[in-house]
Amino acid sequence: MGETLLPKRLGLPVFCSDPLSSNAYATEEILLVLSVGGLALLHLTPWIAGAVIVLLVVVVASYRQTCHAYPGGGGAYAVSRANLGQNAALVAASALLVDYVLTVAVSVAAGVSNLVSALPSLAPAAVPLSLGMVTLLTLANLRGVRESGRAFAVPTYGFVLVVFLMIAVGLARVLVGDTPTAESAALAVEPAAGQALGGLALVAVILRAFASGCTALTGVEAVSNGVPSFRSPKSRNAATTLAVMGLLTVTMFAGLTVLALASGVHVAGDLEHLVGAPDGYHQRTVIAQIAGAVFGAGSIGFYLVQTFTTAVLVLAANTAFNGFPILASILGHDEFLPRQLARRGDRLVFSNGILVLALAAGLLLVAFQANPTRLIQLYIVGVFVSFTLSQAGMVKHWTAELRRAEPSARHRIHRARIINTVGACLTSVVLVVVLVSKFAHGAWIVVIAMPLLFVAMLGVHRHYARVDDSLAPSIGGVTLPSRVHAVVLVSRLNAPTLRALAYARATRPSTLVALTVSTDRDDTERLADEWERRGVPVPLTVVASPYRDVIRPAVDFVSDLRRQGPRDVVAVYVPEFVLDRWWEHLLHNQTALRLKARLLFLPGVMATSVPWRLGADGRDQLSAPPVTTPDAAPSPGPTGDVVAATPLPVPR
Amino acid sequence: MGETLLPKRLGLPVFCSDPLSSNAYATEEILLVLSVGGLALLHLTPWIAGAVIVLLVVVVASYRQTCHAYPGGGGAYAVSRANLGQNAALVAASALLVDYVLTVAVSVAAGVSNLVSALPSLAPAAVPLSLGMVTLLTLANLRGVRESGRAFAVPTYGFVLVVFLMIAVGLARVLVGDTPTAESAALAVEPAAGQALGGLALVAVILRAFASGCTALTGVEAVSNGVPSFRSPKSRNAATTLAVMGLLTVTMFAGLTVLALASGVHVAGDLEHLVGAPDGYHQRTVIAQIAGAVFGAGSIGFYLVQTFTTAVLVLAANTAFNGFPILASILGHDEFLPRQLARRGDRLVFSNGILVLALAAGLLLVAFQANPTRLIQLYIVGVFVSFTLSQAGMVKHWTAELRRAEPSARHRIHRARIINTVGACLTSVVLVVVLVSKFAHGAWIVVIAMPLLFVAMLGVHRHYARVDDSLAPSIGGVTLPSRVHAVVLVSRLNAPTLRALAYARATRPSTLVALTVSTDRDDTERLADEWERRGVPVPLTVVASPYRDVIRPAVDFVSDLRRQGPRDVVAVYVPEFVLDRWWEHLLHNQTALRLKARLLFLPGVMATSVPWRLGADGRDQLSAPPVTTPDAAPSPGPTGDVVAATPLPVPR
Repeated sequence: MGETLLPKRLGLPVFCSDPLSSNAYATEEILLVLSVGGLALLHLTPWIAGAVIVLLVVVVASYRQTCHAYPGGGGAYAVSRANLGQNAALVAASALLVDYVLTVAVSVAAGVSNLVSALPSLAPAAVPLSLGMVTLLTLANLRGVRESGRAFAVPTYGFVLVVFLMIAVGLARVLVGDTPTAESAALAVEPAAGQALGGLALVAVILRAFASGCTALTGVEAVSNGVPSFRSPKSRNAATTLAVMGLLTVTMFAGLTVLALASGVHVAGDLEHLVGAPDGYHQRTVIAQIAGAVFGAGSIGFYLVQTFTTAVLVLAANTAFNGFPILASILGHDEFLPRQLARRGDRLVFSNGILVLALAAGLLLVAFQANPTRLIQLYIVGVFVSFTLSQAGMVKHWTAELRRAEPSARHRIHRARIINTVGACLTSVVLVVVLVSKFAHGAWIVVIAMPLLFVAMLGVHRHYARVDDSLAPSIGGVTLPSRVHAVVLVSRLNAPTLRALAYARATRPSTLVALTVSTDRDDTERLADEWERRGVPVPLTVVASPYRDVIRPAVDFVSDLRRQGPRDVVAVYVPEFVLDRWWEHLLHNQTALRLKARLLFLPGVMATSVPWRLGADGRDQLSAPPVTTPDAAPSPGPTGDVVAATPLPVPR
Repeated sequence: MGETLLPKRLGLPVFCSDPLSSNAYATEEILLVLSVGGLALLHLTPWIAGAVIVLLVVVVASYRQTCHAYPGGGGAYAVSRANLGQNAALVAASALLVDYVLTVAVSVAAGVSNLVSALPSLAPAAVPLSLGMVTLLTLANLRGVRESGRAFAVPTYGFVLVVFLMIAVGLARVLVGDTPTAESAALAVEPAAGQALGGLALVAVILRAFASGCTALTGVEAVSNGVPSFRSPKSRNAATTLAVMGLLTVTMFAGLTVLALASGVHVAGDLEHLVGAPDGYHQRTVIAQIAGAVFGAGSIGFYLVQTFTTAVLVLAANTAFNGFPILASILGHDEFLPRQLARRGDRLVFSNGILVLALAAGLLLVAFQANPTRLIQLYIVGVFVSFTLSQAGMVKHWTAELRRAEPSARHRIHRARIINTVGACLTSVVLVVVLVSKFAHGAWIVVIAMPLLFVAMLGVHRHYARVDDSLAPSIGGVTLPSRVHAVVLVSRLNAPTLRALAYARATRPSTLVALTVSTDRDDTERLADEWERRGVPVPLTVVASPYRDVIRPAVDFVSDLRRQGPRDVVAVYVPEFVLDRWWEHLLHNQTALRLKARLLFLPGVMATSVPWRLGADGRDQLSAPPVTTPDAAPSPGPTGDVVAATPLPVPR
């Protein structure tokens, strides 16, 4: 077990690829929002980036407290449930589920737009490319990729290293007076409104830019979730990793923002507002433009940056493929989501959760044309809902701890509570800012989706509780049925039918009928002739079907049988083929399936499938009961003999 | 029965809405093809239209012979099968199946483009609109619309009347010197190649324009298919209806073509070749442009034409919704397609066929962006394959008739054979022309699809034959299993479990086991305690599942049981819930379903579902077996008592 625990140097790539990868788009999102005011607003970028950095430091400090308090893993759901009750926990769960989906969608979309920045000819295929990536991630996770730290290490550390190198080279060039120039430096950006913004509109844009920059914080909670995977001392190692991650993120984010401004990266949300762009201008991502400026367009450095950026973003999407199914399985086990989410597939992964996640992310990617900027509008609300709930839960946790703490620990707990209180206050304020400033830009979708999810989870829970309640066995137990009537369904006289008859006889029912529904007179006469010629000892009962429907007459016959003896039970035997190739099933058993589904609704009836397996050569290879007398005329014998034996009574 | 038979005046709208509606696009398709040569080629239009009319007259005359020869209905499949053998019939069937799909796609796409010509603001929603129409048609047909002649009469006769009125008014205006002017009359069309066509290229364009004009012939065979629905004398009435239809189509087609040329309708396949068109020019359908020119744009007459054109096109699509499922059901009954296509749904319609058709047409509409011109490229190959086969079959039919005919009839038969021979020759020549001229423009899809369908149908047939063969019962019959081992699957101790135990006991098996798979130690201990406390008389067997998988350990247990007694049979009883709302099923029974699917692959095992129905109030309302002793301690009694009774032997 100890071997699978992660040292800090592997914990970082495993749990921090998501927050680190946010740097690939956080700066860009700030610049894009500011571009609605034209180039005039660019001078506000450092202030907005500074505010994001302050927030990031506070959130990282807050989550370090969570690592210490919950060595067993302190996800927002667990912390909320422990401190704020089930409803708050479900709100957090809704936010987290939505966030995981958006992590996949945003990371894949951003990964594709960085790939496309390196290879612009792929631009028209952005949506298929992103769906392809989701498919690959889905298949890899369905097959069961272990959280192999080493595999995660290369792209994550590669991304960090190459970005740091880029920042270092870029800043050095600035210092020596050889400031890099971005490919878009010569372009002007005209204000979206046609004129400079002022007053409230300006404030709104600044708040929205800040909200967009907050994407840099997404994924911070992953480490506090993964504390149990760290080597001892778990909590301290996790907290240290979190601090290192915070330091790296702050440095990268600041460095990229400075370089973007210094090299004159000019981007616009709507390409029409880019003045001076040539026809067919392809707007690369900000990180691609910086890399092009620093290392030279088409240089090895440029391609390295783009490769590692794409790789770390795909990795970030993969973390959601770990997180979502586990959270869904916990919710399934607690009966807030369908229970099958809690069961592992053949390869011991939560395959249903993986498929649900992939489907939802794929839909979002198609709906938003794999545009990361449009997807990010939906992203941040959920993040800050779970931040706020988690921090508020921590405040309550520390308050409870204080009550039973020894005097020596009180100081430490006080300090932790202050940190979490600041975190809770700040994230709740930012939540409001994000909600208001992003609502009209797409966040409303999440504002609708989260309560729906919440209500759905409560509904599922109530349903399961109601069912459990109504399934409680009555005190007196269940009456043993007095008699068993067996009905064997016959469509043709073939081997599966004979086997079903043999099995039905073997259960020694009180009465036994072979039932056929006549939809075609000739067919039925042929069957009856063959039945007689062969001397099948069970009488063949024919019911007519005026409308050529097989199901209803059979169901009616069984209901009648049941009505004659309300304390009896009817066993219906349905011969079925089993075929080796799945598509062959489309050609068979449809009537059997529909009939069995209908029989489920009849009280006092049980439906029995008697399978007959067709091998590849058309022979029943696994058939175990050996054929006995090679005699055409069936002769009754002791136990193990043919169907032919003394007839059993038939009802009426 | 006589009442449901159709007089000629209702037979026309029921069977001829498809060929009559072709006039909505046939002229346009000719003009669009000629536009690749610029306006210079427009003077060829009358010659091409004339060739189409000659062909139409020959085909109508040919099919009139079919009406006389096959009073029971002479579809291409039936005629080919009777005269040319099964393989030719299957080729015809493939062509017809493809054609029905294309009838829906083309008619709906043409209907939408006429709707959009009247309401141009709907233009961006063409694809969703066409999918909506297909959905409506599907729902209406699934509910079972009777071929109500009256409902068909209004749009069909309305279309014919309004078009004739338009032609009359238009020609009158031409005669009095007030020639109507189409909205596009002032636009020039530049040749696609940039210069005038010559030589072989010109011949190719003319042939392609002719092939496109042949869309006017689609649906002609519907009447010969529907002979049995006509009042007596069936054949003569059907032949007369066909002649009337031919006359109407020829007149409308000729009139529309003359008016299009007179009013100067200029269209181009690619809007870029329209010289002088303003920005955002919306190219209306030719019929809309004529209506606008004759009656005035935005006049009541214009909207009437567009309304009836759209309506008759939707009706034409609906005829495929009648034809396809019936043909598919015949093929399903003959085991060339999956047999479930031959069964009627709850409302006695062939619902599977309707769904397959809707799905295929929907896919085509999406793939071709609901563009009628692009879809028509695929359409005509199949039509002429079935024409040719059907006419060739008729020639063979008459030849056979001649041999046994009385001298008095010989002259009539000779004449019919000549007509069909001319028809067969002409349609086969046209088939080659269509194939060659349309191949690169999309017909290749059909050229691939038809043989695939053909091979698939043969494969399905072979599969069914092989299965039937291998299911033939062996002469010696089937061995009666010596003992029955019952295994009841238990996950919790609740009412469904107790019922399953009671039913299993009622079948008096040789041995009886209650089996539970332990995935959680606490849960299992709780179950065992409750089991003991309640005194359930069947011993509880626990198998451990190291990987929390329920299915495999249960299957292994059953296989072991079976291996101990190869001549025995194992009956597995699975308690299942039945819920009233379908979505509730998503929350339950998943394990039961998967287990039953796996058990089908074990030889000598039958799986029995014991249902427990939950009413809306959570109580098992239909539960028939009454609860007996209200006593907590179960007391054994005579037959009809609780599960508690003397324990049965357990294997090992």
